[in-house]
This record gives sequence, C-alpha cells and structure tokens, in this order.
Amino acid sequence: MSFVRTQGRAADALRPVTITRQYTKHAEGSVLVAFGDTKVLCTASVEEKVPPFKRGSGTGWLTAEYGMLPRATHTRSDREAAKGKQSGRTQEIQRLIGRSLRCVFDLDALGERTIALDCDVIQADGGTRTAAITGAFVAAHDAVSFLLAQDKLKVSPIRDFVAAISVGIVDGTPLLDLEYVEDSACDTDMNVVMTASGGFVEVQGTAEGAAFTRDEMGTLLQLADKGIRELVAAQRKALGV
Amino acid sequence: MSFVRTQGRAADALRPVTITRQYTKHAEGSVLVAFGDTKVLCTASVEEKVPPFKRGSGTGWLTAEYGMLPRATHTRSDREAAKGKQSGRTQEIQRLIGRSLRCVFDLDALGERTIALDCDVIQADGGTRTAAITGAFVAAHDAVSFLLAQDKLKVSPIRDFVAAISVGIVDGTPLLDLEYVEDSACDTDMNVVMTASGGFVEVQGTAEGAAFTRDEMGTLLQLADKGIRELVAAQRKALGV
Amino acid sequence: MSFVRTQGRAADALRPVTITRQYTKHAEGSVLVAFGDTKVLCTASVEEKVPPFKRGSGTGWLTAEYGMLPRATHTRSDREAAKGKQSGRTQEIQRLIGRSLRCVFDLDALGERTIALDCDVIQADGGTRTAAITGAFVAAHDAVSFLLAQDKLKVSPIRDFVAAISVGIVDGTPLLDLEYVEDSACDTDMNVVMTASGGFVEVQGTAEGAAFTRDEMGTLLQLADKGIRELVAAQRKALGV
Amino acid sequence: MSFVRTQGRAADALRPVTITRQYTKHAEGSVLVAFGDTKVLCTASVEEKVPPFKRGSGTGWLTAEYGMLPRATHTRSDREAAKGKQSGRTQEIQRLIGRSLRCVFDLDALGERTIALDCDVIQADGGTRTAAITGAFVAAHDAVSFLLAQDKLKVSPIRDFVAAISVGIVDGTPLLDLEYVEDSACDTDMNVVMTASGGFVEVQGTAEGAAFTRDEMGTLLQLADKGIRELVAAQRKALGV
Amino acid sequence: MSFVRTQGRAADALRPVTITRQYTKHAEGSVLVAFGDTKVLCTASVEEKVPPFKRGSGTGWLTAEYGMLPRATHTRSDREAAKGKQSGRTQEIQRLIGRSLRCVFDLDALGERTIALDCDVIQADGGTRTAAITGAFVAAHDAVSFLLAQDKLKVSPIRDFVAAISVGIVDGTPLLDLEYVEDSACDTDMNVVMTASGGFVEVQGTAEGAAFTRDEMGTLLQLADKGIRELVAAQRKALGV
Amino acid sequence: MSFVRTQGRAADALRPVTITRQYTKHAEGSVLVAFGDTKVLCTASVEEKVPPFKRGSGTGWLTAEYGMLPRATHTRSDREAAKGKQSGRTQEIQRLIGRSLRCVFDLDALGERTIALDCDVIQADGGTRTAAITGAFVAAHDAVSFLLAQDKLKVSPIRDFVAAISVGIVDGTPLLDLEYVEDSACDTDMNVVMTASGGFVEVQGTAEGAAFTRDEMGTLLQLADKGIRELVAAQRKALGV
Repeated sequence: MSFVRTQGRAADALRPVTITRQYTKHAEGSVLVAFGDTKVLCTASVEEKVPPFKRGSGTGWLTAEYGMLPRATHTRSDREAAKGKQSGRTQEIQRLIGRSLRCVFDLDALGERTIALDCDVIQADGGTRTAAITGAFVAAHDAVSFLLAQDKLKVSPIRDFVAAISVGIVDGTPLLDLEYVEDSACDTDMNVVMTASGGFVEVQGTAEGAAFTRDEMGTLLQLADKGIRELVAAQRKALGV
Repeated sequence: MSFVRTQGRAADALRPVTITRQYTKHAEGSVLVAFGDTKVLCTASVEEKVPPFKRGSGTGWLTAEYGMLPRATHTRSDREAAKGKQSGRTQEIQRLIGRSLRCVFDLDALGERTIALDCDVIQADGGTRTAAITGAFVAAHDAVSFLLAQDKLKVSPIRDFVAAISVGIVDGTPLLDLEYVEDSACDTDMNVVMTASGGFVEVQGTAEGAAFTRDEMGTLLQLADKGIRELVAAQRKALGV
Repeated sequence: MSFVRTQGRAADALRPVTITRQYTKHAEGSVLVAFGDTKVLCTASVEEKVPPFKRGSGTGWLTAEYGMLPRATHTRSDREAAKGKQSGRTQEIQRLIGRSLRCVFDLDALGERTIALDCDVIQADGGTRTAAITGAFVAAHDAVSFLLAQDKLKVSPIRDFVAAISVGIVDGTPLLDLEYVEDSACDTDMNVVMTASGGFVEVQGTAEGAAFTRDEMGTLLQLADKGIRELVAAQRKALGV
Repeated sequence: MSFVRTQGRAADALRPVTITRQYTKHAEGSVLVAFGDTKVLCTASVEEKVPPFKRGSGTGWLTAEYGMLPRATHTRSDREAAKGKQSGRTQEIQRLIGRSLRCVFDLDALGERTIALDCDVIQADGGTRTAAITGAFVAAHDAVSFLLAQDKLKVSPIRDFVAAISVGIVDGTPLLDLEYVEDSACDTDMNVVMTASGGFVEVQGTAEGAAFTRDEMGTLLQLADKGIRELVAAQRKALGV
Repeated sequence: MSFVRTQGRAADALRPVTITRQYTKHAEGSVLVAFGDTKVLCTASVEEKVPPFKRGSGTGWLTAEYGMLPRATHTRSDREAAKGKQSGRTQEIQRLIGRSLRCVFDLDALGERTIALDCDVIQADGGTRTAAITGAFVAAHDAVSFLLAQDKLKVSPIRDFVAAISVGIVDGTPLLDLEYVEDSACDTDMNVVMTASGGFVEVQGTAEGAAFTRDEMGTLLQLADKGIRELVAAQRKALGV
Repeated sequence: MSFVRTQGRAADALRPVTITRQYTKHAEGSVLVAFGDTKVLCTASVEEKVPPFKRGSGTGWLTAEYGMLPRATHTRSDREAAKGKQSGRTQEIQRLIGRSLRCVFDLDALGERTIALDCDVIQADGGTRTAAITGAFVAAHDAVSFLLAQDKLKVSPIRDFVAAISVGIVDGTPLLDLEYVEDSACDTDMNVVMTASGGFVEVQGTAEGAAFTRDEMGTLLQLADKGIRELVAAQRKALGV
C-alpha cells in the first residue's frame, strides 16, 4: 500500500466511531456522532403535522436539514443564514439524508406526523454527510422509542437499520472512510448508503480528474460493505438493541 | 419481460435520439437534444473571464446552469425566477452537469476562460439531466471548434467524449433510458455518466422503496454501458467526427 | 428612404411571421411564434383556481410570465432564477402581456379559473414582447378550444383578437417591426397592442434621445395599424378561423 | 359633461399644484410636489460616481427610485423593504421616471457623476408617477444649480423642462389629471410625459375594459398638452426662471 | 460646561419639539413629530385582524415598522426595498417601538385587532427612534379615538402615556436629546423610554469607547426623566387632553 | 423570598458556569460556555482582512454572528438559512455581542485584521446572549494569544475583561441569571454587560407588562455587578490568568 494514513490507520479501517445519545435535552432524539475528528449533532424532532402534499393521507414523513457551523472547517466559511440562502451542496446533502432515512421507514406505520432531522456539523474533517446519515438514524430511532413510550405508536415503523460511509481511491489505493486530506487528494470518491441487511440505498460515485473502471467500483463497494457492517454494529451497541 | 414499454420499446433500447446543432444563432454552441419526448436546449457560451477562485491561474472553467420552462411538464410548475430561488433539485442537476463536463476537459489547455453551459428543458418526459449532459457535450465541442477557428486555441482541450443515461428496475425488469411513467414506477433509479472510453464519471443510484443488490447494480451498469456507447455514436455522427 | 433594412425589407413590412401550434405536448395551448429571428415559445396552462383576490367571485383571470433563456441574446445574460429576482424589464413585460390578453377576454364567461401564459424567448432579435403577445393570444385561443371540447365552457369568452407590433423612427424613417439593430439605433420606439377591430389596447411610445412630435406619432400609429392587420390575419390562418 | 368632479373641477383643469423647494435640508435638491391630495417628496442626490456600465465614459447618469409609505393609501399596504422586494409596479414607475429625466439631460455635459432621484409618496390620491416626474425635474434642476455654484459644472446639462400628467376617459368624458376615484372608474388611462417645447417623451395609454380609438387618443393628447404647459409654468415659477 | 451646543442650547434642554396631527389624510392616526431637525412621520393604521399567534385569543396587538427615506441623511443611503432586506439597525428600532407602545396598552381591552405603526424618517439629525416612539404614541392615541368614535371600543385600552428621549455624555458633559454631531462624538449613549407616571419601559445604554459608571448612569437617567416629562406635556398639548 | 428557583438556587446565585476551551480544533479560539443548561459554542476566527469601511485604516475590527440550532429550544424553530433571512432578534443579539467585545479591545493595537466571533447555541435555557458574550471574550482572548505566539502581535490589544449576565424581577423578587421559565414569567428583564473593572458596557432593561422604577433598576444593577464579578473570575480561571 502506497498511501500512509494518519496514525497508521489501515486502508480498510474506519476512524474511531462514537455515538453519544441524549446529547441535548429538548429533542426527542439527540445524538452526537463522531467519525474521528468529524463531529455532527443529529437531532430528531417529532412534529404532529405533515407537509402540504401529505395532508390527509394518513401517512407520515421524514425530512432532513443540514448545516455547518461557520468555523467547523479549517478556514471560516460564510454563515448561510447571513448570506440568505443555502448552497447547492447543502441542499444536495439534506435531500440525500432525507431519502436515505425514508428508505428504511414504513411511512404508513408512522402515521400522519413528521420526524424532522437536523444534522449540524460541529467540526468537519471529511465524511460529514455519511456521519450525518449514520447519526440521524440513531436519533430517529430514539424519536420512535419516544412515540412508542407515549403510546402514540403501537409498532415501530422502522424496517431496517441504515448507515453511510465514504470510500475512495487515493494514489491508487482504495481507502475506507476518507478524512479531509484524503478526500482532497482522491481520484475517485464514493458515498455509499446501505441497510443492515446489505442492500444499497444510495450509491454516489464521482470521478475527480480521471474516470474510474467497473473493477475499481467493485473494490470500493466491497470496502463500503465492510464499513457499513461495522457502523451498524456501533449503532446497535449505542441503542442497546 | 413483464413490463411493456411505450411503442413496444425493448428493455435495453434507447428512445429515438436526435441531436440538432446550431439550433439558435447567437451561442458559440447551440444544440437541441431529444431523448424521445424529452427535449433540452443546450447552449455553450464562451466568456473570456473565469470565476474569482480561478483568476490569475491561467486555467479555465466549465460551469452549467439548468432550468425547466414552467409548462415543460404535465402540470405547470412555478417559475424559479418568480419564486426567487432555484430548487435543491435544480442546483443538484446543474452541479452534476458541470462536474461531468469538466471531467473530460483539460482545463489548463482551455486557457483562462469559461465555457458556460445552459441546459433548458423545453419538454420533459424523464431523463432531462442525462439528455442535458449528452447535449451539453456537443454544444461545448462546438464552442471549442469556434475557439480553434478563431485561433484562440491551438489544440483542443477535449480529452474524451462524455454522455449520460438513466437505467432502472421497474416491476423487476431492468430498463434503459426511463421515460416519465417508468421513472415514477421504478424501484431503483440510476443515472450513469460515462466517457467514450468506458470509464465512469458519475454513478448515482437511488433505491425507491426497497434497497437494491450488488447484482442488480451490475446489471444496470451493463445496460448503461450499452446506452452510453450508442449515445456517443450519436454525438459523433452529429459532430461529423 | 434613407435607412436600408436587412434583406431589403420595406420600411412598412413585417419580418416573416410564423405561428406554430402544438409545439410542445403537455400544455393546453403551445405556440412557437417567430417574427424573423425572434422566437418565443408561448404556452397557455388552464388552472382550475384563481388568485386570492378573485376567489369566490365566479370570474376568471389571465396572467402572464415572461422569461428569456440566458443565451437567447448576443451575449449571455445572467439567469434570473440564479440571481434570485426578475428584472424590472421582465416584470414590466409580463404585466403588459397580462393586461393585453385580459382586454379581449370576458372574464365572467371564463368562469372561476385561470389561464396562465408563459412566454419564453428562445432567440431574441428585437420585438420579443410584441411577438409574445401575438403568440400568447393563439395559445390562449387553443386553451379555450380545449375547455370548450371538454364541455367546461359552453361559449367562448374571447371577444376579439389581439396582437402587438413595434414601430419606430430610425434616421428619420418610420419603420414597422424593428429588429435588434434598428431598435438600438432608433430615435423613437413605440409598442402598440391592438384588437382585430382596430381599437387600441396599449400604446407605449418612448423617445430615445430626442422627443417626438404629434405628427410622428400619427405616422407610427398608422404603420402599426397596418402591421396589426397582417398579424391578425396570420393568427386567423394559424387557427383556421 | 356627464361626470361631476370633486369640488366642481372642470374636465380640463388640473388639481391645485404646489411645488415646495428645500423641503428637507440634506439633499442637493429637495422638492415636495402636490397635485391636489397627492403629495410626493422628490430629492436629488449628487454622487461623484457612475454605475459600472458608465465607468470611464466621461458621461453621467440619472437614476430614479420610487417608493410609497405604507399608509400613503386608503388601506395600509405592505412595506416593500419588509417584503424583501419591490413590486413590478414600483419598478415600472422608477424606470419611467429615470427615462423621462434623462431625455432632457445632456449626459456628456453632466460629466462622470450621477444624480439619484428619490420619489417617495407621502400621500396618494392618483397620479403619483406624474407628480413624481414633475417634482423630480425641479429637484434635479436644484442639484444642477448646486453643481454650478460649486464650479463643478460650467454650463447646465439641462436641455429642456419635462413634466408629466395623466389623462383618461371616464363615463365617456375626457378628463385631465385623474384623482384616485376617477382613475379607478376610467375606461382609458394615459400617462403623458412632455417637454416644455411640446415634444413627447413618453406616452403610455392603457385600455381598461374596452379598447380606445384613434380619435379618443387625439383628444387625450390635446388635453395632456394643455396640462403640461400649465405644469411647466408652475415649475418655472417655483424655480424663478 | 465644556461642550457648546448648537444655537446655545442648554445641556439639559430638548430641541424644539413639534407634534402635528392629521398630517396625512388616510390613516386613522397620522402625526409628524419633529425634534429639532429630526422629522418623523408616524401613522397608525387599524386592521381588523391579528397576527397568527394571536388568532382566536380575543386580545389585540400593536406592531411597528421603521424606515428612513434614502436622503433623510447627510449622504444618500441605499433604499432597503431595493436592497431586498431591512438592516439589523432597522429591525432593532422597530422592535423597540413595538415593545414600548405595547407596554402602555391593555391588549385585552383593544380587542382582536391590530394597530400598525409606521414610523418613516423624513429628515434625520439624531434621535430618530426616540422621536418615532414619542410620535407613534400620539398616532396610536388618535387611532384609539377613531375606534371609540366608531363605537368599536367602549373604553380606551391606553393605560398611560409613553415617550422616549436620548441622553449621553459628550466630552464629560451629560446632555439631553442628542443631535447627530453630538451622537457621533459621545462616549456614552442612552435611549430611555418612560411612561408619564415615571416608570421605565426601556433603558438602553451603550458605551462608545469607554465603559460608564453607575454614577454617570444615574445622572443620565435623571436628565432623561426631565426630558420625558416635557415630551409628555407636549403630547398632552397636541392631543388636548 | 416568594419565588422558588430550580434546585433551590438562591435569588442572587448564578447557575453552574463552565468554560471549556479548545472545544473544536480548527478555530484560533474555541470555547463551549455553559450557564446551567444553556450551552453556547463560541469560536474566534482570525482573518487577515477588514470590512470595506476599515480598509487602509491600519486598525482592526471584531464582528460577531449568532445562531441557534433548530432544536436548541423546547419546540423546533425554523432554520434561518432555510428561511433565507436572520430574524430581528438574531441581528439584535449579534450586534450586541460585537459592540460589547469591541469595547474592551484597542482596535488600533489589533492591526488591520478581523476577529470574527461565531456564537452558536447548542442548547437554550435562557440567557443565551449573556453566555455568548462571556464565552466569546474567552475565545477572542485565545485568538489574541495565537496572534502573540505567531509574533503577529507584540502586545495584546485587550484592555479589560468583559462578561454579561441577565437579571430580572419575578413575582416581585429580583433574580440573578434567569433561566427560561423565569425569563418567561418576569416583569422586568435586564441584560447587563460589564468590564472586570466594574464599568458598564451595555445596559438593556425591558419592562414586560408593567414599567419598572429607579429603585428596582438600582437593585438589579447591583445584582448584575455581583454576577459579573463571578463570571470574570470563571473566565480568569479558565484562561489561567
């Protein structure tokens, strides 16, 4: 292997993953997830209403918003609230989080209510969207437990676990869970969202510079599969289920 | 095969593709691309300046914007200029088009100038983003020919052809080039951007409802590969190269 | 006559006018109108609702929006959706189109519904607003035919035809239907909206540089009257009525 | 005459016109103009810079902004600053004021500076745009006097006086200078901007309901001509020139 | 005393205060208030509705908006409607005006309606927010009289008078009612809102440069108290109560 | 004392205060400050540029932005970045933080650079703005230490410590450091910003419901003074100075 990772991490190793529940006190689900130095606060808020296109349907909805504190990054970036609009990148990520979570929920079983997921990056070091999805699932799980405890739900609408990880090729080496310096240097970058049962929910591969081959894609998907299994184990451990 | 397509189209067949160059007269490149009833006007504008982050670098840039006429769709949608902002979907698509085109350009060889690609959907029937990428490449090629003819460039900065196609699984059947009714019904939807030499530039697969397997993904990528080869042939024929 | 027009066009001659109906497939009315190199796509969308100030009134409404593709012009102009607002010029034109169309409609007879007219300039060479009004009328006429065919209307709410043309004085010569180079060079510029029965709906004359006299205005209105009669004939021919 | 006007005003009579100079103390020109109950504060600000498209040209510019205090009207209207955008009507009016003023200025003789005209409606009772143009000219004249007094200009760039008035047909009667109730009731409404030497700068006629004839237009223009002459006399008297 | 004020004004003297009622004709309350050269038009509009958070509560609301004409100041400032947003300063001031007025109103007794206060600065010379509050109270009082006269209210919901004044320390001298040059030069600036019965509604003290002491604060509050008593007398005189 | 506080807190007692430095790794200063359950992340970013109005002046600037995570509060509030603008409350608070910090900085000694303070509320339970100011000072102090360590500054531009606390009267009892339930219930609410040497930087007192007296104000200021002394001690302890 040609590329030496920070602290001697193996090419197929995740960074240390921590999932802290009940991080803040008001939200129905509140999770601080860390993938190494990437730290994202994911809260799940239960709202007893649905967006206009769902009203009267009897089915529920999950929606996500994503944000980054201005100094979560190496150099300060402008606050989106001050600029008056969310960037294309922000919107792309929050749409991805929403789709990923909805894929493992039975929206009919959720009933006509919304779980709003807020993923706010406290500190960024690559992989903020994959950490956000992984943590948001745990926060949503806690929100469902709240609804069950309140007898607002009889059975859980959660059909499967979902987690996400990035993979990429840096200097010819396939790597799992890219941190920022690796992400900047990589030739191919792929974000993979998978269920605990091994199905793909989202696969987003992007060539940076040179196009990638079917074989490279296969290698990366295998690496992602390994990472997802470990992340789901971490989610289970945090939830005690 | 269980799913019957419009006009008896085969599961692995593209819709009729037409690429009309010089569709409007002012732009350096102007292409109307049709994938069946999906029609997108792609123009390429040469601007002798670059965005701030590129100034003084000596290298160029390609950027893309995407829009849809309000009544390109079955029911009229609000005009984004009147709403005062572009939707997340619009921003996601125009970022994808820009990345895809930049991947086959040698930005150093382009010199410190910008090619701005405008992809405006005149009529929508599924696959607007893939038609846009396929047509935008031809428009960009014409813009480069203009620069060569003007002696502003000595050699072409184009390194490869690029095209895009959608694939998906509908009622268990893998289909190439989804039209609107198929796109709405599909279980898995994938947009694939590839070069003429067979490399992947972007792969974006999304599960709608149920997650998809590695095998399904393999089948879809193979189908996409077939479609891309036909699209590149259509681009070559239109360009006479 | 001192000013020589493109392709030897006479001072009182329109550019070639073409009106293509059913240009796109989703809209109730869809017309591509060309005044020479100026090409505008006008669609009419029937919406079974009215703006708030009309609700419960039993009467209908016509509204118009106008847009220009970024590279419809010689040099690319910024996309209004990306800038986040419509220019004053855009708003002025769409208000003009709406007023002009409403003037020939019996809004009571239309019933409590809206016809939304979208006029999008595909290619610009002067006279985009006059082409838009002329084409929008034909699109609105097709939308009414659709409502009659659907038995949603028993009688047509259309009371008269309406069309629009520009006139101006360039180098002392009164000209009909100004193209871009003439428009840029003219001393006086007037847009005239008239009905088939010869009444004025809108007259907007603007001095560019020097003020104009009552006599000049009389000459221009006469020229406009000639142009409008020819445009109404073209509308009738296209509609077959 | 069938229509009885407020306070027995004759059909061809202006409302009482007052022009108060130096109404506020900071602006280079500050004029409160009243057409009856319509009161507009017009200020002219000299700025030693020009818009980007004029930079380095050696020529100047006049620009106008228009606003209405929220309770200038019968019922309170939303504040445009709070809504976050100017209405189409506002933009249309400020473009009209700017064009009208520029028409009587020699922009080369003004030098590379801007006169910014702010027309703010304190109280509205019809004819706010015509009062604004009439008052803005006087404010601009004072700003020019300031520049001459400061020796920043050697000769005045003002080539002629300009004023504006509305005319319309109400219940078949042509009326000069419409107040609000007349404006709401009129069949045809025309705003006319003219120079002291009798040339037309802008003519904007709009049919409300029924189209109007060439003869009606002739009558209205004659009425406007009478009103403009009286307004220019009032401007001269206020300026003492 | 070390600091010499304009026109020999005493350190503890207000500028000449004038309060002109019925300044414009449409509003239920319309007051032009002048503190020396600072002139603010305050209108009160009665609206028979309340904001969403008050609907169905049976209680009313007072809200305020603040604006400044572009050339109210020494150099022209950008129009907030054109910029598309209100500055932080504007929002801070209009929130202050609203809170101050609500403090002397019995919102239950007002009934489920809103009094909207618009405070527009015609000319600025320091103290615009204090003049606005002082004038807005008189306008609101007139709006209440209108409601009483219309029998929409049986008893007045006004519990006390409210007025506001600025105080500050300039070159070591405590001054009442700062004008612009004093405001720019001051070390400590305080805006005080008080009731006629001598209670504090708002106290906002800001150190400019150096922090201020408890003693200085005491002196300033005493000075403010004197000014408020004079302002309330002026309000009473204007209202004839 | 009539009002019983959470966990038997004394009327004149602060909640437990914790100040954690180096909370995130990228910022020059990064502090998590907690006043009980109120937790605010304050980062200080050094930027080697100044706002336009300071360019070329040789002096520096401190600026602040404030935000609240959507679920920092009991019920989720809309994300300001998604709404496209910052509320009046947000702008008011960030202006207050900026002014407070600048008051203890020698901006000349800072040199032509900016310290940007971002105060983001992770969890809210009353007193977010006072916690923000108190924490932002420590973050700014760390940023100065960074500049000194880098030899970009020779001497510290910090002239004094600054901290802030809220005080209020609830059910007749003066209380120090209001938590959310107290803040909602209070008659008078005051935010006080003071220096370590006992000077006032900002005093903002607001009557909620009934006006307050000079005596009550005196009592509250004394209580604030006690709290500020304890906060400065906590700042010193955290900084080890």
